[in-house]
Amino acid sequence: MKVSALVARANVPLSAIKFYQREGLLPDGVRTSPNQVDYGEEHVKRVRLIRALLETGGLSIAATKEVLRAVDTDGVSMADTFDLAQRAMSTPRTPASTPSAMSRNHVIRLAQSRGWSFTLDNPGIDAAARALDGLRAIDLDLTDAYLGAYAAAASTAAAADLHALTSLSDPDELAELMVVGSILGDPLFAGLRRLAHEDATHHLFPTPPSRGKL
Amino acid sequence: MKVSALVARANVPLSAIKFYQREGLLPDGVRTSPNQVDYGEEHVKRVRLIRALLETGGLSIAATKEVLRAVDTDGVSMADTFDLAQRAMSTPRTPASTPSAMSRNHVIRLAQSRGWSFTLDNPGIDAAARALDGLRAIDLDLTDAYLGAYAAAASTAAAADLHALTSLSDPDELAELMVVGSILGDPLFAGLRRLAHEDATHHLFPTPPSRGKL
Repeated sequence: MKVSALVARANVPLSAIKFYQREGLLPDGVRTSPNQVDYGEEHVKRVRLIRALLETGGLSIAATKEVLRAVDTDGVSMADTFDLAQRAMSTPRTPASTPSAMSRNHVIRLAQSRGWSFTLDNPGIDAAARALDGLRAIDLDLTDAYLGAYAAAASTAAAADLHALTSLSDPDELAELMVVGSILGDPLFAGLRRLAHEDATHHLFPTPPSRGKL
Repeated sequence: MKVSALVARANVPLSAIKFYQREGLLPDGVRTSPNQVDYGEEHVKRVRLIRALLETGGLSIAATKEVLRAVDTDGVSMADTFDLAQRAMSTPRTPASTPSAMSRNHVIRLAQSRGWSFTLDNPGIDAAARALDGLRAIDLDLTDAYLGAYAAAASTAAAADLHALTSLSDPDELAELMVVGSILGDPLFAGLRRLAHEDATHHLFPTPPSRGKL
């Protein structure tokens, strides 16, 4: 297909495609004549994936490049792939400060209370602790029920992720899903939580039906 | 307290405090003598909140300013506050492209199948649809069980959020929690999901104990 068809199929502007190529994220098409370059189905999928990692996953160009390399390399071990996904997601665009020891310990106790098996250098500890620091800054009472609900939600999602992984037998597909699924599960949850909020808010603060008529 | 004490208490570098003041996010301290400015407990809390919104929540400076204005203004209606939080979170730092109609419809059907009451301009629809587009780009089979687990996780978290809200009676505290909790719930979940992944992965891919001895 021509680049115009790639633009239409992948639903991104031509400028984005040129940018991805310049940054080495997207391979060039095949030149079939002096003024014609041909793109295939794999380009459509790659553009969609790049966009998802950059925009939806919020990854930097460098982290996106590293993730694509892992996805493209055959025979990367499972442990290495998972490690890479963890690191790519933990590289924030703005330098992250150290969370308080109090919040770190709170997260560790929460995970232990659920019987989770984890290492103390899992970047999730700092990520969750930073969020707790922010909630403490508005004096939110971080009850066991509140945090327990979030831990239960995380368990539910992680179980679905791992179930999707076990449905695959090709190790390269598995590595791909491990990296991309780890990254995109967060925005998927975030979007659905917005919808669930609106539902819960409608029940809690119903709009007075006659308001527009006053 | 002196600015050095504020730096220590809020756990951010002096340069960050000056930056927040320059951007109009943090009020100045009170000048008590020609070379002494006094900061109070409210400055410590404000610095922690700014940091959480910028770094952990990933908000832009402009969105952070808008959120702080809502938190500071007395008597903002609940609906307006909630709307503001939704908008602040939906303003990505990189321009977001339109998700596919297929993924948008998929999200809408998923929410309807759970009986959620929501409007079609809820920004969560596009956010979740963008994540689905990315998962489709790697040919992930988006089963009802997978998406249902994420929707259930979102319900669990949203119910905990709303329960925390109903525990407050002061409308200004409520508005504050509504905005900040909406924003920080996502990174809290993301961190805990990392930990839950490691737990699930330990069960699925146990490390061979003798490997280091080969």
